[in-house]
Amino acid sequence: MNKAAVAAVEELAPAFTALFSKIGEDSRDGKGVTRDAFGPRETRAATTIAEFARGEGLDTGFDHGGNLHITPRGQYERAPEILIGSHLDSVPVGGNYDGLAGVIAGVVILSALQRTGATMPPIRVLGFRGEESPWFNTAYLGSKLLLGALTHEELKTLRRFDTGKSLAEHIAALGMKVPAGRLPATVPLERVRAYFELHIEQAPLLENLGRPLGVATAIRGNIRYPHAQCFGRYAHSGAVPRAYREDALMASAKLITYADEVWRGLIEAGNDDLVFTCGIFHTDSSEHAMTKVPGEVSFSLNIGATKNDVMESMRRSLADRAEELAREHKVRFDFGERVGTPAADLDARLAAAVTRAGEDIGIAPIRMPTVGHDAAMFQRRGIPSSVLLIRNANGSHNPAEHMEMTDFEAGVKVLTSAVCALSDR
Amino acid sequence: MNKAAVAAVEELAPAFTALFSKIGEDSRDGKGVTRDAFGPRETRAATTIAEFARGEGLDTGFDHGGNLHITPRGQYERAPEILIGSHLDSVPVGGNYDGLAGVIAGVVILSALQRTGATMPPIRVLGFRGEESPWFNTAYLGSKLLLGALTHEELKTLRRFDTGKSLAEHIAALGMKVPAGRLPATVPLERVRAYFELHIEQAPLLENLGRPLGVATAIRGNIRYPHAQCFGRYAHSGAVPRAYREDALMASAKLITYADEVWRGLIEAGNDDLVFTCGIFHTDSSEHAMTKVPGEVSFSLNIGATKNDVMESMRRSLADRAEELAREHKVRFDFGERVGTPAADLDARLAAAVTRAGEDIGIAPIRMPTVGHDAAMFQRRGIPSSVLLIRNANGSHNPAEHMEMTDFEAGVKVLTSAVCALSDR
Repeated sequence: MNKAAVAAVEELAPAFTALFSKIGEDSRDGKGVTRDAFGPRETRAATTIAEFARGEGLDTGFDHGGNLHITPRGQYERAPEILIGSHLDSVPVGGNYDGLAGVIAGVVILSALQRTGATMPPIRVLGFRGEESPWFNTAYLGSKLLLGALTHEELKTLRRFDTGKSLAEHIAALGMKVPAGRLPATVPLERVRAYFELHIEQAPLLENLGRPLGVATAIRGNIRYPHAQCFGRYAHSGAVPRAYREDALMASAKLITYADEVWRGLIEAGNDDLVFTCGIFHTDSSEHAMTKVPGEVSFSLNIGATKNDVMESMRRSLADRAEELAREHKVRFDFGERVGTPAADLDARLAAAVTRAGEDIGIAPIRMPTVGHDAAMFQRRGIPSSVLLIRNANGSHNPAEHMEMTDFEAGVKVLTSAVCALSDR
Repeated sequence: MNKAAVAAVEELAPAFTALFSKIGEDSRDGKGVTRDAFGPRETRAATTIAEFARGEGLDTGFDHGGNLHITPRGQYERAPEILIGSHLDSVPVGGNYDGLAGVIAGVVILSALQRTGATMPPIRVLGFRGEESPWFNTAYLGSKLLLGALTHEELKTLRRFDTGKSLAEHIAALGMKVPAGRLPATVPLERVRAYFELHIEQAPLLENLGRPLGVATAIRGNIRYPHAQCFGRYAHSGAVPRAYREDALMASAKLITYADEVWRGLIEAGNDDLVFTCGIFHTDSSEHAMTKVPGEVSFSLNIGATKNDVMESMRRSLADRAEELAREHKVRFDFGERVGTPAADLDARLAAAVTRAGEDIGIAPIRMPTVGHDAAMFQRRGIPSSVLLIRNANGSHNPAEHMEMTDFEAGVKVLTSAVCALSDR
C-alpha cells in the first residue's frame, strides 16, 4: 500500500465533494440530472473536471471524439500503461453518480499521486462521451471512438433521439474534427496493461449486504431491440367482438407477460443470471383512444446475462412466443433492428489485485457480476480490465441515485493502491 | 309504406352522395377524417348540412350547445313529436360515416317528405356536437346539452385533450351563449314520442352475414377508467434483479393479459355479451428508456356489455387482480376517475315498427345489440328510442370506414317509412 497516496486521497475529500456538487448543480433538469451525450451539459461536466485537474498541475485535452484526457504533467503525448476511465453523460432524468463517479475517481487518483511528489507512472484518465444508450439508441460511443471502433458511416447514421441530429453533427458542434479515412484509436494502446473503472453499483446488493465495495467478475452483455413493433388493426372498442379483433396491445402485453414467466421460471430453477426489461411500451399517441382497439404498439426488449447462451435462449423464446401470439391475435410483430453487446468475463488477475488492495486497506470488496460499462469495450479489445463497484442507494438511471462520499473515498483509496501496486510504487 | 316519400329518397341519392363527399373533403386531416368536437371542422359539417336543408326549404338553427336543429318550414318553434338525430364529430383520425350518416339521414328524410308536398309531421332533425369520448374524455356532450343534462360546473371542468380549453370556452368560441342558472333542454320534450338514429355498424357482423341493415335491441353500456395509472420505481434495467424491481409496466401488462383471459373464459362458457378494450397504454415518454425499469404506466380500461351486472363483474375481477399484482410486483394501481354509461334496452315497439317498415320495402333488418350512441341518452330520459344500423366495412373509428351509398339509401327508406307509419302518413 502506498500510504502517502492513500493519505492524499483523504486530503482531497473536500475537493471531490465540491466537484460532485458543482457538476450536479450544473446538470439539473428540474426533475433530476441530465448530461446529454455529445451535448452542452456533458461538455460542462468535462470542462469543470479539466479545470480542477489543471489546478492540480495535470495536463488535459480532448480527442477527436470529444473524450476528456488527463495525464500527469508532461505526459500528454506519452503512451500510457494504465487507463482509468468512465463516462460523463447520464441517461435523461438520471442521477449524478452513474459515470461521473469514475471520471472524478480518476482525476482524484492522479491528483493524489501528484501530491505525493513521487515520479508519476504513465497513467491516463479518460472521461468518455455518450455511454448511455437512450441518446443514440446504442451504448459506449465515446469509448468506441477512443478505441477507433466506429466508422464514418456510423457517425452519419446514428441520430440522437431528441435533437434528431447525427453523431457526426454533434461531434462537429463540439468543435471537434474527425479525421478522414479509417478512424484511428485516439490514444496509443500498444503498451496499455490495464483499464480500471470505478462505478456505482446499479443494483441494491451492496446496500442490502451492508458492504461498501464490490469487484466485478463479469460484465453482463445484452441483446436489445430498441424499436420493436406490433401491428394489428384499429377498431371500435365497443362494437367489435373479440374474434374479429387484431389487437396489437393485447398481443404485446401477453409477450411481455410471457417474458416475466420465463424469467421467474429460470430463477425458481436456480438460474439467476438473466435479466429482462421492457423499458418503453406505448400505443401511438396520434391515433390511440380509450374507444379504439389499438392497431399499433411500439416497445423495446432488453435481455441481459453474463452468459451469451442464456441471452440467446431468451431471445429465441420471445421470438417463438411472438409467432404464436401473432397467430392468436391476427397481428404482426416486427422486432426491428437488433443491437447489443456480448457478455464479457473481466480480467481475473486484476480483480485479484483490486481485492488484495482492498484487504490491505481493510475494506475487502465482494465479488459480483456487473452490467455494461465502458470497461467492456476495453476487455473485448484484449486490454485486461477491472470494475470496482461502489455501494449506491435507490438504484441508478434515476434522480434518487445516492452514493455516500465516504464509500467513494474508500473506493478511490483501493483503486489508488491497486494502481500503485501494478506500477510498482 | 309512403311510396311517394320513399321515391323522393331515391331522387335525393345524388344530393346525399355529394353531401358525404363534400363534408369528407372538408374534414381530411392527412391520414383520415377529423371533425373535432365543439371545434371548427365539426361546425363546417353542420353549416354544410344546414345550407343543404335551407335549399330544400327547411328551417335550421343552432341551440346554445351548438347542436344543429332542422325542422319543416315554419315549425322551428313548434314542439316536435319525432326526433331524428346523430352526431357531427368524429374521433381523431377517424372515418367519414360514424355519426355523420345519421345527421344526413335525418335531413334526407325531411327533404323527401317535403318534396312529396304532404302536410309535414312535427319532426326535428338534430346534429349533435361532441359525441365521441376522446375529445373531452366523456361521451354524448351534445345530446346531454340538448337534454339539459349538463351543469355549468361540468362545462368548466371538462377540457379538450388537445386544446386544453374547457367545454365552456369551446362553446363560447362557437359564438353560443349558455344561459345562467340550471341549464334547460334546448327543445321541448313533453310531446316527443320517438327518437330515431341511423348509424353505421361498428362491428363487421352485417358485413360478414351479407345483410345491409340491423335494428338494435339494446345499447351496450360501459364502465371506463380513462386515466388509470400504475406506479412502481424506475431502476437500472441490467443491474436490478427481479426480486428488487417495482416494475409498473410488467404489472400493467399482466393486468391487461388477465382481462383477456377472463373475456375468453366468458366466451368459451357461451356468454358473448362482454367487450373489453385497453385503447391507451404507455410508459412515460419524458422518463422511459430501453435501459430503465419503468416506474410509471398510464392506461385506459374500457368495459362494455348490454347487461350492467356483466360489466360490474368484470370491473371487480380487474380490481381484485390489480391488488394481487400490486403485491407481487410491489407497485400501486390507481384506476382514477370512473366514467361511463349504464347499458340500456332500446324500445321494443319502435324496433318492431322499424322491422315492419323494412319488411314492407323488402329489406328486413336483423336484430342485434349495438354500442353507445346518442340514442342511449334519449332512451335513458324515458323517450322511446331506436337505432337502425347500416352495414359498414372495416369497422369504425378509423379512416377505412366504408358504407355503400346503396346501403345508406336502403336504411333511409326504411326509416322514412317507419317515421311515416308512426305519424300516420
